[in-house]
Amino acid sequence: MAQDKLIGIDLGGTTTKFALLTQTGKIVDKWSIKTQTEDHGSQILPNMIASIQAKLEEWKLTSQDILGIGMGSPGSVDRKAGTVVGAYNLNWQEVQAVKATMEEELGLDFYLDNDANVAALGEQWQGAGDQDPNLVFMTLGTGVGGGIILDNQLVHGAHDTAGEIGHLTVSNDRFDFPCTCGKSGCLESIASASGIVKVAQQMLAENKGQSQLYQVADRGDLEAKVIFDLAKQGDDLALLIVDIVCDYLAFAAGNIANIVNPSVIVIGGGVSQAGAILKETVEKHLADYLFPPLRDKTRVKIAQLESDAGVIGAGSLVLKEKLA
Amino acid sequence: MAQDKLIGIDLGGTTTKFALLTQTGKIVDKWSIKTQTEDHGSQILPNMIASIQAKLEEWKLTSQDILGIGMGSPGSVDRKAGTVVGAYNLNWQEVQAVKATMEEELGLDFYLDNDANVAALGEQWQGAGDQDPNLVFMTLGTGVGGGIILDNQLVHGAHDTAGEIGHLTVSNDRFDFPCTCGKSGCLESIASASGIVKVAQQMLAENKGQSQLYQVADRGDLEAKVIFDLAKQGDDLALLIVDIVCDYLAFAAGNIANIVNPSVIVIGGGVSQAGAILKETVEKHLADYLFPPLRDKTRVKIAQLESDAGVIGAGSLVLKEKLA
Repeated sequence: MAQDKLIGIDLGGTTTKFALLTQTGKIVDKWSIKTQTEDHGSQILPNMIASIQAKLEEWKLTSQDILGIGMGSPGSVDRKAGTVVGAYNLNWQEVQAVKATMEEELGLDFYLDNDANVAALGEQWQGAGDQDPNLVFMTLGTGVGGGIILDNQLVHGAHDTAGEIGHLTVSNDRFDFPCTCGKSGCLESIASASGIVKVAQQMLAENKGQSQLYQVADRGDLEAKVIFDLAKQGDDLALLIVDIVCDYLAFAAGNIANIVNPSVIVIGGGVSQAGAILKETVEKHLADYLFPPLRDKTRVKIAQLESDAGVIGAGSLVLKEKLA
Repeated sequence: MAQDKLIGIDLGGTTTKFALLTQTGKIVDKWSIKTQTEDHGSQILPNMIASIQAKLEEWKLTSQDILGIGMGSPGSVDRKAGTVVGAYNLNWQEVQAVKATMEEELGLDFYLDNDANVAALGEQWQGAGDQDPNLVFMTLGTGVGGGIILDNQLVHGAHDTAGEIGHLTVSNDRFDFPCTCGKSGCLESIASASGIVKVAQQMLAENKGQSQLYQVADRGDLEAKVIFDLAKQGDDLALLIVDIVCDYLAFAAGNIANIVNPSVIVIGGGVSQAGAILKETVEKHLADYLFPPLRDKTRVKIAQLESDAGVIGAGSLVLKEKLA
């Protein structure tokens, strides 16, 4: 029974989630703590260490029982150095020696990767990906990110930015919004939660009609979820907005598939809770953009693990890295 | 000195090229034969075998001197099965057991991959790629193809179609031409040799002016090379056409880089003989499409090996596969 457990950490700007996992990906225990971002995030690592130590004690486990710890982090992760920099929602402006600190304090091997990559691993291992070795994960939330797994390995590229699908250029027309990254027409500026609202605002300004969205907008309640909910109820303008957003998503998904040829594209993140309408509308448009031989070979699925994708994927990172 | 040589084959619809190579990628000898496509291409393999046997005899080499044979092929290559199907320019409609036949007849290990992937390996190993482990190769000729190398390995995807960049959707506007693949707006329909002519025809129809292209077109001589040559001489309309084509190429290159993060994008194929004007015009537009952190980290280069890329890359395939 030596070293048969994994620990997964999903570090976020508000909450740090943890799980104790078996090597077959089952959650034995999960818990979370508030991410303390004060004082340049200097308490983040000490708090994680203390939380893991307390949990190991609670389960009467020692470092002999744990194969290693994996973590998904926001910001720019240097996997080889084991550091994170520029994670602004953590107040980590300076380079953080995450791996070295964690390994020294806990006496356990520690691996890290960016949060979207780790969530991709989670969905592949225990979620919608069904252990498919060739999978693309798109996460639609506050931002748009992604992870690409080919031949069972995460794709990192030359500078660890492979899978930055939020900044694919997808529009050169009236939805060519400026993006926070500095360019325009990015997928994130259209298909993130706030991007969907921007598309809706533009459509509301251009259209006249009976849509309930006018009242919603007047109340200041225009949000991605409301738009999808009204679309499901048959509101014409809401349906049109969903169709436009999903067309851009399909453009991005189709071109990603033409480039790296996954068998499955998993859509996750908060926006994916819209469910079937999102999946079906993306699928409807996908054929326009997919290389025809791939049309019956590229499936679209909605993510299944919700907020557990990160901790489960972080656990699988240990297996990937340690058993590689 | 045992098994220190490689044989590379570049199988094309008109010519089959061969090279005898050292393991450091130097060409010891190169030769070619006509590709006999008659009778469903049934003579293609026997001709290759006879040509290799004659060359080994000429150099007084035996199977003991050769590490293996690599080949780039058109059509749909099944690497695991070692077969090729649907290579219409070879008249290979039926599945061809290429690997099994070659290995049986020559007593040498044999590896194959598609022609664009193999050319990518060649440029990476001995050409513009300068052995960079993360490289994208775009070939612009009769068609548009590509190969993606990440972490020193060719990317194949779930169905060996990764890198089919000719069928990236890049246009939804007035250059949204139908493509031979069945969809429209493909990079190939704009940036192949014939695609560039289509863009020129559309521009000639829309514009009035003093461009020499009007006379060229009247003579029936409108070709990609003439358009680039006139652009180099400062012909305004030719410059505009080159700018449009390179903008679409930059869109494709930028989005490929956003997805897989290579450090270098090598442009090859016949169209790339246009040289500096092609490279510089693509570079000019690339920043509009690249995720900003990648702007100073993603280089564009023109291929250097011309028609030797295939045989050299085929030789390196032996090293990749056999020494993997």
